[in-house]
Amino acid sequence: MRIDAGLLERQLDALYAIGAEAGGGAYRPLYGDAWAAACGQVERWMKDAGLAVRRDAVGNIWGRFEGTAAGKAVVTGSHIDTVRRGGRLDGALGITAGLAALRALIEARGKPKRPLELLVVCEEEGSRFATNFWGSRAIIGAIGPHEADTVTDAEGVTLARAMRERGFNPENICSAARDDLGAFVELHIEQGAVLETERVSLAVVTTIAGGVHLEIVVTGRPDHAGTTPMDLRRDALAGAAAMIQAVQSIAAALGRPAVATVGKLSVEPGQINVVPGRVTFTVDLRHSDLGGRRALEERIRSLCNTIASERGLGIEIRTLHERPPVPMDGAVRQVLERAATEAGIVPAALVSGAGHDAQVLAARCAVGMLFVPSIGGRSHCPEEATDPAHVTLGTQVLARALELLAY
Amino acid sequence: MRIDAGLLERQLDALYAIGAEAGGGAYRPLYGDAWAAACGQVERWMKDAGLAVRRDAVGNIWGRFEGTAAGKAVVTGSHIDTVRRGGRLDGALGITAGLAALRALIEARGKPKRPLELLVVCEEEGSRFATNFWGSRAIIGAIGPHEADTVTDAEGVTLARAMRERGFNPENICSAARDDLGAFVELHIEQGAVLETERVSLAVVTTIAGGVHLEIVVTGRPDHAGTTPMDLRRDALAGAAAMIQAVQSIAAALGRPAVATVGKLSVEPGQINVVPGRVTFTVDLRHSDLGGRRALEERIRSLCNTIASERGLGIEIRTLHERPPVPMDGAVRQVLERAATEAGIVPAALVSGAGHDAQVLAARCAVGMLFVPSIGGRSHCPEEATDPAHVTLGTQVLARALELLAY
Repeated sequence: MRIDAGLLERQLDALYAIGAEAGGGAYRPLYGDAWAAACGQVERWMKDAGLAVRRDAVGNIWGRFEGTAAGKAVVTGSHIDTVRRGGRLDGALGITAGLAALRALIEARGKPKRPLELLVVCEEEGSRFATNFWGSRAIIGAIGPHEADTVTDAEGVTLARAMRERGFNPENICSAARDDLGAFVELHIEQGAVLETERVSLAVVTTIAGGVHLEIVVTGRPDHAGTTPMDLRRDALAGAAAMIQAVQSIAAALGRPAVATVGKLSVEPGQINVVPGRVTFTVDLRHSDLGGRRALEERIRSLCNTIASERGLGIEIRTLHERPPVPMDGAVRQVLERAATEAGIVPAALVSGAGHDAQVLAARCAVGMLFVPSIGGRSHCPEEATDPAHVTLGTQVLARALELLAY
Repeated sequence: MRIDAGLLERQLDALYAIGAEAGGGAYRPLYGDAWAAACGQVERWMKDAGLAVRRDAVGNIWGRFEGTAAGKAVVTGSHIDTVRRGGRLDGALGITAGLAALRALIEARGKPKRPLELLVVCEEEGSRFATNFWGSRAIIGAIGPHEADTVTDAEGVTLARAMRERGFNPENICSAARDDLGAFVELHIEQGAVLETERVSLAVVTTIAGGVHLEIVVTGRPDHAGTTPMDLRRDALAGAAAMIQAVQSIAAALGRPAVATVGKLSVEPGQINVVPGRVTFTVDLRHSDLGGRRALEERIRSLCNTIASERGLGIEIRTLHERPPVPMDGAVRQVLERAATEAGIVPAALVSGAGHDAQVLAARCAVGMLFVPSIGGRSHCPEEATDPAHVTLGTQVLARALELLAY
């Protein structure tokens, strides 16, 4: 099988140019003009490659190459939407590499046994609306009955209105559901620096980490910064700082793949000369293993409560959001490992800390993912990049895995 | 000497009602309607007490009781402006207690040797404009030549325009300067909880603490919260949390009167699932002794630099504002201590962590301050309160001190 590496890189460039932002990066929010232009472009490429192309009710694009036997489809692909100032590869790589793999397979092997499909997911990033996994949730039939009418973008436009303006009928969302998928395999960038640090050029994902988002509110007493001695204070920020330290060190002590992040923090009253009376911060906890994540959360909750009580501070801990880890399918993992080994690679086994459509599609089919290294671990930014040699290698392994699954 | 405690409390109530805000507290910003009404009210009380009343070019009110001999004036008083949702006592106590003390002195002793004056300072709090100590700086002739034309309020109104609208001529500001002040003594609430905690009913201030405001910017690398293992992060907030801990513990270890406060903090990008790339926070450092404050600052700077370098973080420390400590006049302190002792009190010797007009007026005359306890240490809020017995005691000691200075 011959991967056209040059075409793949040119197609990545072409997609990155659609929705290009001043100062770098591209932004292709769901149902926007850049999104529509990118969909049109990819559709043309898919037709050129000989695929039978259709759009479903929410705008996912399916390009099918029929098999010789009946059977569930073997699918590859990724999402076409991007975060603001998104990079060149997130989503786009899975689409262009999937297309390159299907071209190579069709050219080298002709008709497969099982149908092969390229899937361009309309939305994964929460790129515009206050929701995400819109495309893959439609495929598994998991869109709520009133969701399109109630979820809005920053301007207050509902998903339903945005769909209609783009020619989709929200009444038909349920028709996007499929029950004839056999496997879904996606090539993605790592979005972290583990592979680069460990000098490994490919990973087979073992699990998409589960996580929880907590909001912690610490309440002390706002006091005059000049007149209140240190020993008479109930400083909410001093307490929060001790808690942030605890969050970091508990996760660091547990080691990979446990991660804990305090990403948002606000101080009230937030004046230079007033002792903080109230601090609100978030904790993002992830782990590949549900028990591990719960243990991490339990230790963090307990230590934060202890710190608050030692300092005479009030504390409230609220769960904003929770999702379980999703293990990848064992048989698909074996196929991916075999394909990598045949390419002369010993792939790393990696937990994905980020979420991906595979975690949703796992409800309907066997899923698996390949990761290629991200230079400097950068992602969701204009600096997002991967060595072209790694892109080609990942695409080759993907193509071989699809061959093993479909032929 | 008989202090009319009932009248004093009624006058405090009357002032607190001027500029009353919905939900509690009063707001009397410089040159506003509530400010003008309060000035008019106090002026009437001063005339009733037999003082010769005049307003200077910036709106400070002076009520004079001539002495039998020539000599520099002995002055008491405080400021009439308030912070937003200000309390009943900050400023108002020094005015009403000063008036009560002068009434009692005139009634009991008649004409003093040296002239006695009550000073109602037009502004101390930075209550409206991006400046403060406007009244006392005018008295020492320290208003900059273009200040009235360049300093504005939140609506962009210049000080000069606000003065004109209230009938003052900014051209005449220099005429507010006085070189005939002998002593200034002010009774104020502590605004902290030291006296209450130590069960002492009066303090003689030793020094108004000097301070410095620092701004610290910590730079790390914004990373994906899911894909970046703990050991590969450069988390600006984790570093800042360690620095905040260090700031607190250095000040706490030095003990009173050293205080250090981190009151403002902002996180970038400030997203729940992104490792913070940049954190900006402020440090407010105060100490009664310049050497002590510098040592405190030096240790904090050094430890923050060490923490940044250990964690591979960038750090910039900028001085926003700096002011030296101002010791109270030794002779005036002795007079205040003697007056307290005669009232049967062993006063505490306290450093004022907050700023006061005395620190400005110290450039022109001998200054001293008395503090009465703040219930729960509360100030600059509707909960600001002092036991009426402490108010009366403070006023008695003030009156006796003025007697010792002027008769």
